[in-house]
Amino acid sequence: MHARIGDLAALLGGELAGPAELAVTRIAPLESAGPDAICFLANPRYLSQLTSSLAGCVIVAPPMRDLAVARGAAIVCADPYLAFARLTQWWALRIRRPAAPGIHASAIVEPGAVVHPGASVGAMAYIGAGAQLGAGVVIGVQAHVGEYAFIGNDTQIKPRAVLAEGSRIGERGLVHSGAVIGADGFGFAPASGHWEKIEQLGTVRIGNDVEIGANTCIDRGALDDTVIEDGVKLDNQIQIGHNVRIGAHSAFAGCVGVAGSTKFGRHCTAGGAAMILGHLELVDHVHISAATIITRSIHKPGQYTGLFPFDDNASWEKNAATLKQLHTLRERLRALEKKS
Amino acid sequence: MHARIGDLAALLGGELAGPAELAVTRIAPLESAGPDAICFLANPRYLSQLTSSLAGCVIVAPPMRDLAVARGAAIVCADPYLAFARLTQWWALRIRRPAAPGIHASAIVEPGAVVHPGASVGAMAYIGAGAQLGAGVVIGVQAHVGEYAFIGNDTQIKPRAVLAEGSRIGERGLVHSGAVIGADGFGFAPASGHWEKIEQLGTVRIGNDVEIGANTCIDRGALDDTVIEDGVKLDNQIQIGHNVRIGAHSAFAGCVGVAGSTKFGRHCTAGGAAMILGHLELVDHVHISAATIITRSIHKPGQYTGLFPFDDNASWEKNAATLKQLHTLRERLRALEKKS
Amino acid sequence: MHARIGDLAALLGGELAGPAELAVTRIAPLESAGPDAICFLANPRYLSQLTSSLAGCVIVAPPMRDLAVARGAAIVCADPYLAFARLTQWWALRIRRPAAPGIHASAIVEPGAVVHPGASVGAMAYIGAGAQLGAGVVIGVQAHVGEYAFIGNDTQIKPRAVLAEGSRIGERGLVHSGAVIGADGFGFAPASGHWEKIEQLGTVRIGNDVEIGANTCIDRGALDDTVIEDGVKLDNQIQIGHNVRIGAHSAFAGCVGVAGSTKFGRHCTAGGAAMILGHLELVDHVHISAATIITRSIHKPGQYTGLFPFDDNASWEKNAATLKQLHTLRERLRALEKKS
Repeated sequence: MHARIGDLAALLGGELAGPAELAVTRIAPLESAGPDAICFLANPRYLSQLTSSLAGCVIVAPPMRDLAVARGAAIVCADPYLAFARLTQWWALRIRRPAAPGIHASAIVEPGAVVHPGASVGAMAYIGAGAQLGAGVVIGVQAHVGEYAFIGNDTQIKPRAVLAEGSRIGERGLVHSGAVIGADGFGFAPASGHWEKIEQLGTVRIGNDVEIGANTCIDRGALDDTVIEDGVKLDNQIQIGHNVRIGAHSAFAGCVGVAGSTKFGRHCTAGGAAMILGHLELVDHVHISAATIITRSIHKPGQYTGLFPFDDNASWEKNAATLKQLHTLRERLRALEKKS
Repeated sequence: MHARIGDLAALLGGELAGPAELAVTRIAPLESAGPDAICFLANPRYLSQLTSSLAGCVIVAPPMRDLAVARGAAIVCADPYLAFARLTQWWALRIRRPAAPGIHASAIVEPGAVVHPGASVGAMAYIGAGAQLGAGVVIGVQAHVGEYAFIGNDTQIKPRAVLAEGSRIGERGLVHSGAVIGADGFGFAPASGHWEKIEQLGTVRIGNDVEIGANTCIDRGALDDTVIEDGVKLDNQIQIGHNVRIGAHSAFAGCVGVAGSTKFGRHCTAGGAAMILGHLELVDHVHISAATIITRSIHKPGQYTGLFPFDDNASWEKNAATLKQLHTLRERLRALEKKS
Repeated sequence: MHARIGDLAALLGGELAGPAELAVTRIAPLESAGPDAICFLANPRYLSQLTSSLAGCVIVAPPMRDLAVARGAAIVCADPYLAFARLTQWWALRIRRPAAPGIHASAIVEPGAVVHPGASVGAMAYIGAGAQLGAGVVIGVQAHVGEYAFIGNDTQIKPRAVLAEGSRIGERGLVHSGAVIGADGFGFAPASGHWEKIEQLGTVRIGNDVEIGANTCIDRGALDDTVIEDGVKLDNQIQIGHNVRIGAHSAFAGCVGVAGSTKFGRHCTAGGAAMILGHLELVDHVHISAATIITRSIHKPGQYTGLFPFDDNASWEKNAATLKQLHTLRERLRALEKKS
């Protein structure tokens, strides 16, 4: 694969500073790029990498134009990070072989399933009775689509992912390997020393343009459905409990957990390993820091944090011991204040 | 599917207040129910939803009887939440198609495996040599049962779950998709700069009436077995290390981790993302709050907590900075006390 | 299976104290061993178990020799834990049936894949086009090897693990069930209210002698590769983000998360559920305690900790309430100090 930077500037809608016919053969990070690579600079923190980079061409924002041009070819774009994202998409389309439409001979498609002729069903995949697959859908090798599941146009289910019975996902979605969509929510009633199962009668409804990471789980609802709105991006190893709603265009990093019935607004984010307890409501534009535990509803947009700072082990031990006396410390301080 | 509420009252052993022939077609939450739905009210916190609900019939406790009857039909039960659980079970039995007994043509059953004629083995499932499947067992599509594994009557292994070689699970169990039972425990001996593997020679033994969530892992023991006792309920994304024992009727929410050789008593619970270190002992009726790290054995029943409260980011930053000076703060307070 | 302790002493390079012809039939923990078992004592904490154990033979360190011999047969080794590890390996080789070389009739091997005649491909496994499998490789039942993936000699991929397209793993590796190697890293550029995908064009490169736990994920790099060096051991449910590098002989316990682009040195360890934020650098021999969140780079070897101590719930509530006033407490203390 190789591309002329003139064509790339046109693709990205940027200003070309350099010879249009200069060819690049890969996209690379600034620090490891050679003359055959195109790079981007989005964060001014990495400015020093720009001047020393051997990259053939660099995508930069207008304020970096002069510095970039001083060292070689450049494409000047208003938002270099976004331009980079679009460049990776264009590149991927050209280096990846698209899945051939049709159903692999070893796949099993149950009677009553409707598979669009433009869909692709991989080897040893399973499509349950009554399932519907739209045009351009790609079902990976060994993937599982349960009965009456629905998959919108151009959505990809990667090898060995599970979309359980009745679950629905919209268009242009991407579900990574090992993800399990539509397993039972965790519901039990206590009954004289044992637990009585609450059958989970709802399902999972996922909007358009949603990406779901590897080994992430989204449970089906107890009575109503669990809902993931349009444009949501979930990283790997995430757990979404039953009857949760994630508002549109929210994005959660790896290992996040959301307990049952919690509702997120739109455009929220959660850092890695953040944990949100059940039955809470969070408004739009709430940003939760990594490893933070959310224990009550949040009514105001903003950044919320609650993580215990790490230290060398000896210092931590000293401070942690005092932690358990915090309340007493406050009492002692109050007593002193009264005296003085 | 539709049901007469007279029949439901009889099923649940409750008092019917309303016309026996009134039909409902679904179970719904109070706030979204229409006249065709039956609902329950278990938590007095949601009392206001009762009076405004359009539900055709409501399951309530005796103290709520009058309020419920004032608005329409009701079934009065001592424990409405338990009644609701039983109703979902009855309902699920009627709307779900049972798996047909027999072995799907595409499944592979190795020589020496014993599959009860009343068991069902799904498409592309694998049953290893010497495995035993009891009556009413349902092995989901693409599921994996290792050699010499044992599955008691009426246990269901969902699509794409793994029960590795030699693992045993009792009757009426439910193992969700992506769960891995019987992978190696994590054991290595340090050996001059590298790690020498300790082969995991034990297995996993799971009792009756156990539910295991999607993508949950239970490792095999190093020498003795890892043991999950009767009636235990494990949510998704849980990690149970080698040689752990979980006492009967314990229930753990999603993302919990239990490190090797820890023993839980009976009737314990753990909130989401709680983490329990290895080689500890916890007595019966220990309840661990969400996101709490248990670092020593617990000899007394009760609720245990240790999570860092979240705050808006600016407030957290201020307090977190002080955290590292806690020990010094205590010293300074002591000095002042001496002076005064 | 049974073994003469004389042979075991020779195998382990230890001194035999007892009759060489004494036979043992299993390896067991000290406290549950019978006369047919061989045990080890590595931790002096368990010394009391030695004297009361019924074990036929015990592996001990030289200082324990007399105590061990007083109760029966013993093998004296400089490092009993390491000797135990090697004994389990020797034992496992004898009780486990090796996978037969060859490709199961139900496996699918795409044209252009190169499978060494000494490799074994299990039932319903999938080998993508252009993949290469070395001698002694064992691909488990229903496992997935993507196109152009590379697997070095004697590496085992357990049932239902995924090694996605282009991923590489060296020799003598072990990848457990449900692991997903090579799913997309989590990369999106914000674009006027939605997220624009950054296609992940790198891959995953794993060295020799690496073990990867059940349901663990290692994401492919965005441009460059994600790298796991030789001898690394990863437990279950771990998340490794894109472009992470884990230095040789590091070992991470279950549920650890490492965010994108973080670089670990060699010989590092992380306790269960430790979480390491992205774009950090950690030098060799950094040891992170369980449940600790690493938020900045670490330039000095040592043990680092940051976990909130648990308490009974009532005590925790009292102290947690004071936590949010920590900064104010410090101000009040300062005011008092000025006065006094």
